[in-house]
Amino acid sequence: MVDKLSVGIMGATGLVGQRFLQLLHEHPWFEIAKLAGSPEKAGKRYLEATTWVWSSDPPETIVDMKLCRPEAKEFSKLDIVFSALPTSIAMNLELELARSGTTVVSTNSFMRLEEDTPLINPEVNAEHIELIELQRVKRKWSGCIIKAPNCTTAILTLTLKPLLDTYGIKCVRIATMQALSGAGYRGVLSMDILDNIIPYIEGEEEKVSIETRKILGRFENKSIIFHPIKVSASCHRVPILEGHLEVVFLELEEKPPDINDVIRIMEDFRGIPQELKLPTAPPKPIIVRREKNRPQPRLDRMVHRGMAVTVGRIRWDESCESGLKYIVLGSNTVRGAAGAALLTAELLYKLEKV
Amino acid sequence: MVDKLSVGIMGATGLVGQRFLQLLHEHPWFEIAKLAGSPEKAGKRYLEATTWVWSSDPPETIVDMKLCRPEAKEFSKLDIVFSALPTSIAMNLELELARSGTTVVSTNSFMRLEEDTPLINPEVNAEHIELIELQRVKRKWSGCIIKAPNCTTAILTLTLKPLLDTYGIKCVRIATMQALSGAGYRGVLSMDILDNIIPYIEGEEEKVSIETRKILGRFENKSIIFHPIKVSASCHRVPILEGHLEVVFLELEEKPPDINDVIRIMEDFRGIPQELKLPTAPPKPIIVRREKNRPQPRLDRMVHRGMAVTVGRIRWDESCESGLKYIVLGSNTVRGAAGAALLTAELLYKLEKV
Amino acid sequence: MVDKLSVGIMGATGLVGQRFLQLLHEHPWFEIAKLAGSPEKAGKRYLEATTWVWSSDPPETIVDMKLCRPEAKEFSKLDIVFSALPTSIAMNLELELARSGTTVVSTNSFMRLEEDTPLINPEVNAEHIELIELQRVKRKWSGCIIKAPNCTTAILTLTLKPLLDTYGIKCVRIATMQALSGAGYRGVLSMDILDNIIPYIEGEEEKVSIETRKILGRFENKSIIFHPIKVSASCHRVPILEGHLEVVFLELEEKPPDINDVIRIMEDFRGIPQELKLPTAPPKPIIVRREKNRPQPRLDRMVHRGMAVTVGRIRWDESCESGLKYIVLGSNTVRGAAGAALLTAELLYKLEKV
Amino acid sequence: MVDKLSVGIMGATGLVGQRFLQLLHEHPWFEIAKLAGSPEKAGKRYLEATTWVWSSDPPETIVDMKLCRPEAKEFSKLDIVFSALPTSIAMNLELELARSGTTVVSTNSFMRLEEDTPLINPEVNAEHIELIELQRVKRKWSGCIIKAPNCTTAILTLTLKPLLDTYGIKCVRIATMQALSGAGYRGVLSMDILDNIIPYIEGEEEKVSIETRKILGRFENKSIIFHPIKVSASCHRVPILEGHLEVVFLELEEKPPDINDVIRIMEDFRGIPQELKLPTAPPKPIIVRREKNRPQPRLDRMVHRGMAVTVGRIRWDESCESGLKYIVLGSNTVRGAAGAALLTAELLYKLEKV
Repeated sequence: MVDKLSVGIMGATGLVGQRFLQLLHEHPWFEIAKLAGSPEKAGKRYLEATTWVWSSDPPETIVDMKLCRPEAKEFSKLDIVFSALPTSIAMNLELELARSGTTVVSTNSFMRLEEDTPLINPEVNAEHIELIELQRVKRKWSGCIIKAPNCTTAILTLTLKPLLDTYGIKCVRIATMQALSGAGYRGVLSMDILDNIIPYIEGEEEKVSIETRKILGRFENKSIIFHPIKVSASCHRVPILEGHLEVVFLELEEKPPDINDVIRIMEDFRGIPQELKLPTAPPKPIIVRREKNRPQPRLDRMVHRGMAVTVGRIRWDESCESGLKYIVLGSNTVRGAAGAALLTAELLYKLEKV
Repeated sequence: MVDKLSVGIMGATGLVGQRFLQLLHEHPWFEIAKLAGSPEKAGKRYLEATTWVWSSDPPETIVDMKLCRPEAKEFSKLDIVFSALPTSIAMNLELELARSGTTVVSTNSFMRLEEDTPLINPEVNAEHIELIELQRVKRKWSGCIIKAPNCTTAILTLTLKPLLDTYGIKCVRIATMQALSGAGYRGVLSMDILDNIIPYIEGEEEKVSIETRKILGRFENKSIIFHPIKVSASCHRVPILEGHLEVVFLELEEKPPDINDVIRIMEDFRGIPQELKLPTAPPKPIIVRREKNRPQPRLDRMVHRGMAVTVGRIRWDESCESGLKYIVLGSNTVRGAAGAALLTAELLYKLEKV
Repeated sequence: MVDKLSVGIMGATGLVGQRFLQLLHEHPWFEIAKLAGSPEKAGKRYLEATTWVWSSDPPETIVDMKLCRPEAKEFSKLDIVFSALPTSIAMNLELELARSGTTVVSTNSFMRLEEDTPLINPEVNAEHIELIELQRVKRKWSGCIIKAPNCTTAILTLTLKPLLDTYGIKCVRIATMQALSGAGYRGVLSMDILDNIIPYIEGEEEKVSIETRKILGRFENKSIIFHPIKVSASCHRVPILEGHLEVVFLELEEKPPDINDVIRIMEDFRGIPQELKLPTAPPKPIIVRREKNRPQPRLDRMVHRGMAVTVGRIRWDESCESGLKYIVLGSNTVRGAAGAALLTAELLYKLEKV
Repeated sequence: MVDKLSVGIMGATGLVGQRFLQLLHEHPWFEIAKLAGSPEKAGKRYLEATTWVWSSDPPETIVDMKLCRPEAKEFSKLDIVFSALPTSIAMNLELELARSGTTVVSTNSFMRLEEDTPLINPEVNAEHIELIELQRVKRKWSGCIIKAPNCTTAILTLTLKPLLDTYGIKCVRIATMQALSGAGYRGVLSMDILDNIIPYIEGEEEKVSIETRKILGRFENKSIIFHPIKVSASCHRVPILEGHLEVVFLELEEKPPDINDVIRIMEDFRGIPQELKLPTAPPKPIIVRREKNRPQPRLDRMVHRGMAVTVGRIRWDESCESGLKYIVLGSNTVRGAAGAALLTAELLYKLEKV
């Protein structure tokens, strides 16, 4: 116990914050030392200040923790701070913490596209983490800010990576069916979504397009060369609680010998988190289901505690020469947010960068 | 009244059958004379034999009609028979009726791809109706069988037609979010779909692909030359009652001057049903919404009694040179089934082919 | 046209406001002259300022009307003002209007229990409307304020009235399953209610209990003697869009001869709105269904445009001597709010009190 | 391992069967030796034959087990057989097994009301288990049949027991909101229940009424004297996956000193399973929540693996002298079926009756 790192969670009462608590419960390396929600919740017990939405109750050890204020001085002594705050609130706070020496791993979109900021999906681009050296020098920070990708992008890029490395990819078209939890606890009103679909999610399509290119980019000469891959997205909200289902149409550079080859490439895919046996790394980042009617959100979203994505219906896309299509499902709040951030923190720890 | 055509509905108790009743209520040209459900329902009152699912009750005039047996002899004297039976039951019955002189307009998939069988989406390919002459000669029938397209295809092709005529289309990728009613009353169990998506619909993707090519094909020399357009579909069931939402990615032959031009082309689109002022024809087959978050199934599915489709989010698809993407929503049971069939029957009547 | 009364709607953009618009469309006596939403919406077109939730679009004649500010001076010249504002905003505004001579018919809970304020469910206690004379004298108002009951209470009392008059009622126990729309557009978050029930609705049980006693009370000597009936309620929110379903257990004073007698009493029930043939009055206020599995919210909530309630499963309650139980469904936004208010306004007009 | 009892599950592929598998996974006393579904599934692997509906996958050890035929000879050598078959199929099979010496613990309704058949909710009436002696003698069986109660009744009686023992109960009125899983995998069609309630469940109200009286009855002179308590139920199906929520109105014999006393009585309640520390017994059978808006099905249904029920909103029922009302939630497939049966089997084992 004595040598666990102290971590804090800002935005701990929200849906992603709740996931951080679940994932950090009995974590071998990290110990939760501080929690904050919005300013007006400071001083309250965690359970009292939170509308817990997941089916199992919050960890006993957390229930009675007092929330502190979301302020830099509260969190600056910690080894790692996870930020699940919305961008507007997070900005100054994350900057101040990084400046004063804290390692911040954050799930909001602020700074994701800055050229000195690592945007990490650990199995895909762990090597981008080196950018923090540049960030520190350039900004004269003793701490750093590392970002987890947009939820849809995190799930997508995990499946693109092995295909890109094996066959090359010319372009990606993706249509999504995204869960309510992706909009946050207050994000979608019931009168808007029962027996309905909302076919628009602000800013989402642009994020998927540009973040994918950064994450798949090469780290060279102390900077990221964005990958030239073209990504076109259409994003939609559907009445399910958790789990983004993504329909992916690819034009590959080279046609795979057969579908089984594609399946094998996906199933065999491992990243650095698996090599390093990081505690939160799923044994396989990609599960491939052979049944025609899987993955299904309610059944598959929490596989390996939500850290693996599930791919299904891999088949040719007959509309172009080397076309491939498939669907992929992932937990938007775990793999697409808290889980990716935690895995990144574990990577930092293992690489002795924190 | 005296000179209305007598029509019958086979499969009248199912979801599409119920739509036929709604649409035929107080129809200016057609009068319901016979109804049949499955054989064991024969002799029962309509209301007693039916689980009515739509929000307004069935028309008063229908409620007490006795169901007859789904047999050719019951329906052979009628001017037009609408068949909403499932393929397995419909086959022999539709054949027998056509042979014995009855005009059958049918919504199931049986015979849709036969070379002598018109597959009609009235605003798109009304001229294909001439195929029935060939059908009659070749099969020595005094009646005929005409098919309505698959629901997803009916909605899709309505939007493809004006774009194809104006800009040309190289290929179509489509991802769908399809309503429960598309699977029929007994099609989807609640335990399978609440808080869930079923990402597979048997046979649907193949139908969208091949039927689109037939519907958009040229009628030449007494046969249909299938259009070479490539269509790749991925079809999924979501927890909404009615209305298929389709995400469409197009590669056009020629890039439109701007998005407003595309909007105008769609809004100005009219087909023969509009020219002929058929009673069930919507004033405009395509409604274009400018709001970013429309169409939405619950709000837009029944526009013009479910006969028009609603298009939204028309924008460039940046992943290829002349790429365009949009979403389209239509009532799967009306525009995608009963409504398309009824409009076809009205066309036949107006063209004096019945 | 020339002699229609001018009416205004305050709170016109909310769910109940939207119902007022639907019900007032092509109304024979009333013409909409003014609409207001919240102050910041003033100046906007109605459609632009509103998230319309019902399946058919708002009436064409309304779509482009400009919203005015929710202020007394905007509405004080009108013959009748309907208020669907929340209590906190409504209070001063309604008072000011009544003071300055306007007839206000309001759906919020403010003043419902004041001894000089009529709380009207028109088929049940139309005679209470005389209270406005008292109100005017006592408060020195030239206008008046009349309230529609709480939604659950409006539906419940409609069924209690004929039973009370025929058999007498000792006590009422009621358990409700209430629709999302009852909480207003922003009332229930989707993350809280999908695959869930919220077993508490603030203030609802108290309202049902006390308002029922006022509505069923006798008007005597210029005041209402509350009925001594005991009403115990347990209220719950379920994931349906519209329609409150209420489970009613009654102890009657006198045991009915048989269940058919109860059915007859309910079906034969008519109130003053039916006698006076008010335009919005349903032909029968209570529809009794004999099927074991009706009423169902999705199928029955909009019967007679939402103005009638549907009763089903009338049977003995074997737990006490003269026990009766049944379920009743009504549209909470129509019968339970806008519709009750409009019917009250029609009553006022017909009685020449406006 | 060597000395675990061999158990079999008939009806293993259904929703309750799936719960048996979850609860028996790594059970300290029992080992699954045989599984059967419907006859046509015999020979198939478990996973292949099953539509698994719960969020975590079935236990690895079960996935590849071959299903046998639901026949007595397959199960007659086992120590205990759990039957989750529907009554129609179960009848002869359960009888044959009991005759030939097998202990059958069954969740269907067959024989529940026979005077020689124990109907056991273990915390409530464990002593009724002695009835099997009578059953064996009377029927000349070497085995026996023991039944678990109807799901709604199992949840209800757990809360009635401590109140009955402390204050006495004159009558019970209960209105339920029951989950989809209660009707079995194929029980409710999605077109019937989305945005809807089905206000009738065949046979349910009668079961709640009569089974409650048997379970709460005294075991005297080798027979059960049914309790005279009056129970009136109204049962309804709502669109939630799992968890029955029950609204309970009680008339007590004696008024509790205050509500806290009632809370304490419920929280302190323990039964024989807790005394004997049976492996599946929840530490407390009744959890009382103080928050006004709990229990909620999605959040509370699986507390203590679904074995405890959660009570909330305990308050006076002002409609009668010693009236009390509250709501209770329980997992219908666990506490209301598989869990109650398993706990009963553990009781038998501990009492050396198997």
